[in-house]
Amino acid sequence: MNKFFFPESIVIVGVSEAEDNLGQNIILNLANFGYSGKIYAVGPKGGQVMGHTVYPSVLDVPETADLAVILAPARFIPEIITQCGIKGIKLAVIESAGFREMGESGKRIEKDLLTAANLSGIRFVGPNCMGVINTQNGLYIQFIALPSAFKKGHVSVMSQSGGIGLSIAERLQQPGLGLDKFVSMGNKLNLDEADLLAHLIKDPNTKIVYCYLEDFKRGKEFADLAFQTNKPVVLHKSNATPLTRTIAKSHSAALAGDDKIVDAACSHAGIMRVTSTEDAILAIKGFSMPFLQGKNLAILSRSGGHAVVATDMCAEYGFNLPKFHSSILDETRKHFRAGVINIGNPLDMGDIFDLKIYPQIIEKILQQPDIHGIVYIHVSHMLMEKKDTIQLMKRLAELTYQYKKPIVITIEVPHSFYPALMKESMYPFLMDPVEAFKALTFQYQYTLYRQKTEHTVEKTVFPLKENVKSWIKGICQKNRQPLLHEALDLLDRLRIPTAPWRMVTTFAEACEAANEMGYPVVLKVVAPSVLHKSDQGGIAINIKNVKTLEEQWKDIHSRFKNIIGIVLQKMIFASREIIVGAKRDRSFGPAVLVGLGGIMVEAMQDVSMRLAPVSENTANEMIHKLRGARILGPFRGMKIANRQAVIQCLVKVSQLMHHFSEILEMDINPMILSDDGNVALALDARVICSTATET
Amino acid sequence: MNKFFFPESIVIVGVSEAEDNLGQNIILNLANFGYSGKIYAVGPKGGQVMGHTVYPSVLDVPETADLAVILAPARFIPEIITQCGIKGIKLAVIESAGFREMGESGKRIEKDLLTAANLSGIRFVGPNCMGVINTQNGLYIQFIALPSAFKKGHVSVMSQSGGIGLSIAERLQQPGLGLDKFVSMGNKLNLDEADLLAHLIKDPNTKIVYCYLEDFKRGKEFADLAFQTNKPVVLHKSNATPLTRTIAKSHSAALAGDDKIVDAACSHAGIMRVTSTEDAILAIKGFSMPFLQGKNLAILSRSGGHAVVATDMCAEYGFNLPKFHSSILDETRKHFRAGVINIGNPLDMGDIFDLKIYPQIIEKILQQPDIHGIVYIHVSHMLMEKKDTIQLMKRLAELTYQYKKPIVITIEVPHSFYPALMKESMYPFLMDPVEAFKALTFQYQYTLYRQKTEHTVEKTVFPLKENVKSWIKGICQKNRQPLLHEALDLLDRLRIPTAPWRMVTTFAEACEAANEMGYPVVLKVVAPSVLHKSDQGGIAINIKNVKTLEEQWKDIHSRFKNIIGIVLQKMIFASREIIVGAKRDRSFGPAVLVGLGGIMVEAMQDVSMRLAPVSENTANEMIHKLRGARILGPFRGMKIANRQAVIQCLVKVSQLMHHFSEILEMDINPMILSDDGNVALALDARVICSTATET
Repeated sequence: MNKFFFPESIVIVGVSEAEDNLGQNIILNLANFGYSGKIYAVGPKGGQVMGHTVYPSVLDVPETADLAVILAPARFIPEIITQCGIKGIKLAVIESAGFREMGESGKRIEKDLLTAANLSGIRFVGPNCMGVINTQNGLYIQFIALPSAFKKGHVSVMSQSGGIGLSIAERLQQPGLGLDKFVSMGNKLNLDEADLLAHLIKDPNTKIVYCYLEDFKRGKEFADLAFQTNKPVVLHKSNATPLTRTIAKSHSAALAGDDKIVDAACSHAGIMRVTSTEDAILAIKGFSMPFLQGKNLAILSRSGGHAVVATDMCAEYGFNLPKFHSSILDETRKHFRAGVINIGNPLDMGDIFDLKIYPQIIEKILQQPDIHGIVYIHVSHMLMEKKDTIQLMKRLAELTYQYKKPIVITIEVPHSFYPALMKESMYPFLMDPVEAFKALTFQYQYTLYRQKTEHTVEKTVFPLKENVKSWIKGICQKNRQPLLHEALDLLDRLRIPTAPWRMVTTFAEACEAANEMGYPVVLKVVAPSVLHKSDQGGIAINIKNVKTLEEQWKDIHSRFKNIIGIVLQKMIFASREIIVGAKRDRSFGPAVLVGLGGIMVEAMQDVSMRLAPVSENTANEMIHKLRGARILGPFRGMKIANRQAVIQCLVKVSQLMHHFSEILEMDINPMILSDDGNVALALDARVICSTATET
Repeated sequence: MNKFFFPESIVIVGVSEAEDNLGQNIILNLANFGYSGKIYAVGPKGGQVMGHTVYPSVLDVPETADLAVILAPARFIPEIITQCGIKGIKLAVIESAGFREMGESGKRIEKDLLTAANLSGIRFVGPNCMGVINTQNGLYIQFIALPSAFKKGHVSVMSQSGGIGLSIAERLQQPGLGLDKFVSMGNKLNLDEADLLAHLIKDPNTKIVYCYLEDFKRGKEFADLAFQTNKPVVLHKSNATPLTRTIAKSHSAALAGDDKIVDAACSHAGIMRVTSTEDAILAIKGFSMPFLQGKNLAILSRSGGHAVVATDMCAEYGFNLPKFHSSILDETRKHFRAGVINIGNPLDMGDIFDLKIYPQIIEKILQQPDIHGIVYIHVSHMLMEKKDTIQLMKRLAELTYQYKKPIVITIEVPHSFYPALMKESMYPFLMDPVEAFKALTFQYQYTLYRQKTEHTVEKTVFPLKENVKSWIKGICQKNRQPLLHEALDLLDRLRIPTAPWRMVTTFAEACEAANEMGYPVVLKVVAPSVLHKSDQGGIAINIKNVKTLEEQWKDIHSRFKNIIGIVLQKMIFASREIIVGAKRDRSFGPAVLVGLGGIMVEAMQDVSMRLAPVSENTANEMIHKLRGARILGPFRGMKIANRQAVIQCLVKVSQLMHHFSEILEMDINPMILSDDGNVALALDARVICSTATET
């Protein structure tokens, strides 16, 4: 696959002498940006273009090539690929559009194209894409004439949209950043996001991967790759709303999937998800600095106002501002001009006019062990400071690497300073204190994630497998979805605690069960036709004696037909409820979720989701991330809830989903948490199985 | 006050021949940027600076002046102000620092300074500020030498931080924006945010006001001014966290107030609150375009990916994408080159290479009546398109004004295009589809706000005034805070429905009351020493018969001392609860809030707050804004809650707070909302009064 980026020879298919021929732009770009390999042009009309003979077909090219770049009408491309195969070409970039995005006829062409490629053993990028760039060897094969080569750097871009990819590449021209490799993935008919990520995380020049996607072809594989690498992956996954359906269809055949599972996958794999190119660049800037090893910052600013804004952000993003050692304060005070500013952290440096003093103070702060990073806001509006500003930036870049602590620099200077700054600075800077904290937060989240995953690679040992196997066998024989008592039975087999329950079919059995477990009890009808028990009046709660039991028993039987039985359950009182759920996604596989329960809180839709299986640590983090998590702590006279039971429940459900693909969905709703903090009991459950047999 | 911005003569105090004298920069700026009035320099050492005689004191200046700009050490300034008074100067800008921000000694100087100014009838900006700018007459009196004049425009800036003010002024150099007036307010010792806003909203050249504040000196007045004007006010209020205490103190003596009341004031007055300079500029860009009159947009993009991202934002911010008329689609299709893209709204224009076609299609879309605005993402990476890009921008600016519909332009082009674009474009553009939607959302919020307030100026008629007066009289006589039965009595007087209750002191009375209202009942102890009834076991609920009533009566009496009585209340069952509260802010006056109640939901802190008094419409909006508002609709088998009762309660509490400054705080917690939607009843209330007598 390396030849995609380092081909020694290229065949360009779709070149003609016509003035508006786009194939010419490919040759032009290669020539302009220094590609030194061989170039062969192909086009049915022949002729000469920029000194290259245009061969009528691929078969006419005098020798084989490492890569074919194809920009011919869609309907010809399967045949062209076959010819490439005959010619011994193994890799292709298909830039033409006109495939599945144009409906049925395009889909048929895609099928033919795949067949042709498979027969010839050709792997290809596209179709419907802007091609590949490698800044190292001048490989620019875009069908538009680019104005200049991109700055070389450490970021590689893989994008399902060529336009978005180029927008990112443009922004990578900023100081301290730069582009290494670029792939416009288009329809991802052959090489997809997992193939390309696999390549880029192994690529020695790529330190950070940016990825723009509109759908996932192999989500689980993509997440697993990001999980394994220690290179940051920044993901912009758009197409999150049904509104995008028209455009996504027209441009790369993607449809909106379940967006929450993308968040779950990102949390799982430490992928930084962003929703704009601007935020993507902030994340990339964050990842291009030394990494923060703790939450303690120093804020330095030449403007008190900017220091206040930065401190607001410091609080908002959860960082701390420890006190400076007195030696730092003394050093600073020494250089004050008018002595009209109080000093501390944040530090208003507005009274120090000589920019050469700044690195001295900043270095002292970097030496303070309990400070992990610096946010420095450089405010300079004086013409005479332009040169000194550039010198200062250079010195700060040296210091940040020397002390391996990030100095996040925000620049607030006149527009006229920028051209020189952009040209001479080798270290990223931000445009606003808010941006500085966003960049810092992206990188710190990643540090935390990396620290964590080193210790908690998910275990998938599942000692209860046999219990579940026999349960699934039973369900399969019945050839219908599991009913309430069967779902509760599954929980019992998983040793997830349930409120005492018994499936009864006669009133005598019901009395016996109620006496055994003690009143009050609850009745829940079990019948294949009853989907929403409570909405349909299939539940009777708080039954306190045998008399009421009999009344309710009769009532339920009078109102429902085809009753298989009734689940009689101990009535349990508790103020706190949670929901545990699981589902299986086409692209990402199984996922589990936890949310706060109860009707009032359900309206808030406060849930967190992760890919299954989850470890205890991850389950704990899921609960912690709930907006209303403090309800589970000591709260309003209630003791801390039995979180451990919830964690165990999540882990078990996640392992169930991981090991048994027959289970498509599952809900435990509610699991109640006693006020005394002792127990967590599932009251109700629902399971949906596929008809698939056990694997 | 106009003379602050149009002085015909200026005295600059604090000038010397010393090389590092900052006063010289003021003279330099005035000379460089074309100020044509008279300039007098003053400094104790005398001499000559840039052709100006330096007079030893203000008294030595040969004539009076319109404005004094003072940059002398703080301790001399009261005397200088007195001299200005003697000389007949009525306005001053005091730029020097060293006042309250330096502690007690500085505070004393401020006091002397205010006295001197009042005696002389002088009004001043500052101290501790960067002065004033007027781009119309070249008035630049900053003590730093600025590199160039700011571009003239329609935005005026008033900032409590000079640094932040200049950061905004720099960003106003972008196309379609520009600076009119600039005030760095500093310590706001004399002229404050309300004075300056009052001036700027009357200023004919100012179309948009940007304001940066760290505290409010006269919040209520500021909000009222913003409420009255139809010029958009963009507010960045920082200093929202206790963490900023050090820096705010050191730089402009501001301390964090209650941040939620700032949001309430902004909602009240239609002020657009932002949290960064970047967002401020987005809001200003939005306000600098024709205003959107509805929620229907067209999205046009030369890159399908950008169209998808924009469409995600469209859904996120709640806009619609109506279908295009077939004539628009036909027109577009006619110009497609390869015909390889499906068309619709959003419209991927990637297949139209000739930029001259774009205005034709865009004009047709502007003509479609049910489309209120266009988001156009201009993606162009081809060198040859540079000139055409600039032509296109110009034509789109014409069209947007011609059709009075916003065309929000996002530019995604190579860096090398920017200098020409920045210079030649007269219409704002954005850097990212996300920015485009933020800008559009800012302006649309403002449109909605203006549409609404035209119809709902708050009424303050309060027919129940006498009822409250006698209640307050009673409380004043007791010389203590109101107790539960008194708080409930206040609600009865306001005709806010309460659950049936009676204050009883003997068991016989309790029995009688319980029989009258019917079991079950609740007991609530009333004693001055009991602050938190429920935490201290002062409440007995769900008492079903006289036997339990007697037990609980005795139990409460055995556990509490100094019992004044017991409130016996009818026990009411309902699933939904809300909280209504009110408080009085030092700077903004009274405010009311509503939130969802119940312990689970309270943990979510889901409340909305507004300045009092509120109209029914505003109260309705407050409820609507709650995150969990759908609980109040038909929800899980419950009927729609009695919102009208909640609205009435909010209106009455707001009027109470407006008319009776004796009431400092109030809480109705909970008010329960019956499942059948019929009633809303207050169960508990707390009132805190000042010792002030009635006004």
